[in-house]
Amino acid sequence: MGGGRDDPAWRAWSHVTKLDPDKSLPAGVTYADVCETGTDAVVVGGTTGVTIEDATEIAHTCRDHDVPVYQEPNTPAVVVEPAAVDGYLVPTVLNAGDPFWIVGAHKEGVRLYPEHDWDRTWTEAYVVLNPDSTVAEYTESDCDLRADDVAAYGRVAERLLGQEILYLEYSGTYGDPDVVEAAAAAVDEATVFYGGGIHGYEDARGMAAHADVVVVGNALYEDGLDALARTVDGARDA
Amino acid sequence: MGGGRDDPAWRAWSHVTKLDPDKSLPAGVTYADVCETGTDAVVVGGTTGVTIEDATEIAHTCRDHDVPVYQEPNTPAVVVEPAAVDGYLVPTVLNAGDPFWIVGAHKEGVRLYPEHDWDRTWTEAYVVLNPDSTVAEYTESDCDLRADDVAAYGRVAERLLGQEILYLEYSGTYGDPDVVEAAAAAVDEATVFYGGGIHGYEDARGMAAHADVVVVGNALYEDGLDALARTVDGARDA
Repeated sequence: MGGGRDDPAWRAWSHVTKLDPDKSLPAGVTYADVCETGTDAVVVGGTTGVTIEDATEIAHTCRDHDVPVYQEPNTPAVVVEPAAVDGYLVPTVLNAGDPFWIVGAHKEGVRLYPEHDWDRTWTEAYVVLNPDSTVAEYTESDCDLRADDVAAYGRVAERLLGQEILYLEYSGTYGDPDVVEAAAAAVDEATVFYGGGIHGYEDARGMAAHADVVVVGNALYEDGLDALARTVDGARDA
Repeated sequence: MGGGRDDPAWRAWSHVTKLDPDKSLPAGVTYADVCETGTDAVVVGGTTGVTIEDATEIAHTCRDHDVPVYQEPNTPAVVVEPAAVDGYLVPTVLNAGDPFWIVGAHKEGVRLYPEHDWDRTWTEAYVVLNPDSTVAEYTESDCDLRADDVAAYGRVAERLLGQEILYLEYSGTYGDPDVVEAAAAAVDEATVFYGGGIHGYEDARGMAAHADVVVVGNALYEDGLDALARTVDGARDA
């Protein structure tokens, strides 16, 4: 992983806004508004219905503003051109039932795009924890995990697989703070991302007490810009 | 992965003898004889029928001789005590169909043995390439791979998963030198191990032209000590 690369920007983030190309912003809200909430970065990505055109358009729009723009490609086919983004965050789903989501997609991506800009690409070691989420169904993840299982995945990610990001994904539901705390305690240097069910200030502050970075998506689409802004405050105040 | 660890000994190896605890040495051959062939290391490990008692006994016997002794545990349950070995080489099978062999076993191992000696443990990123081998059946590996697939697995191992060892496993058959060459060319710093079908001097020399380390097992059990010694010479002369 990245021998000789500069310290990646995401190490200093506390709040990320995830922009799903398959979703429409609430009426009256623009991507400019989102970029100016104070969120530390926008990450363009979704699980289904993502097209390279939609992802590219959102990325280009956001790059006109003073916020880092990353893509989290769900398949190799939707990777946008390097000029559109500051970097790429590529998920590897450690508890996937289908190995395609652990290393298979990555092998295909590397085979198809040998010239990809690896110096601006990092992997995220996901543990998917909400069995009812689309991503859990899609990746056939085994979500029947206790805190010590999740912590062990964190140690495997960091110690055996050279991962610098551990991503605890409760997509669609607010996670178990004890699990998040145990997983965060299990890694030494990896940056812990948390996603799922963050709709307001207290939600964000609660999870940011354990995770380094809180990722917010649905709050924007379901509750609006002010709700997103409150999660920025909550993550920062933790 | 190895932050701050000394350069591991295996970087300088060219020949490894794999000792399978489930097999008996040929009549008249002792583990002392094996250790004195000039092989750079013995690695204790097998796919089936391995017990911790057998593995420990072989490791202790070999450690009385001037050769490094490593264990390659096939499951967490057979990991021998640290005093028995110089280190551990833990396979992760990148093209396994069952994710247990990519990260699941490792998660269980880390969960069960939190005090394991990680400073002397390295992973080996396996690509299993003989569909008729026991290890391919056991791990449900997808062996229908072209040279560019195997090369891409090598790049994923090194660039995305922080792997320092790429292990091309043709177990039971002599591999395709073009595939081995392509995979070796695809990695920058990873050490390439090759295993499978090495029975004599020319076999060893042929694969050692592409791989950094040639692993020999069956030649000892099927052809005897002299055959093993000839593979040592072949690997060294490449």
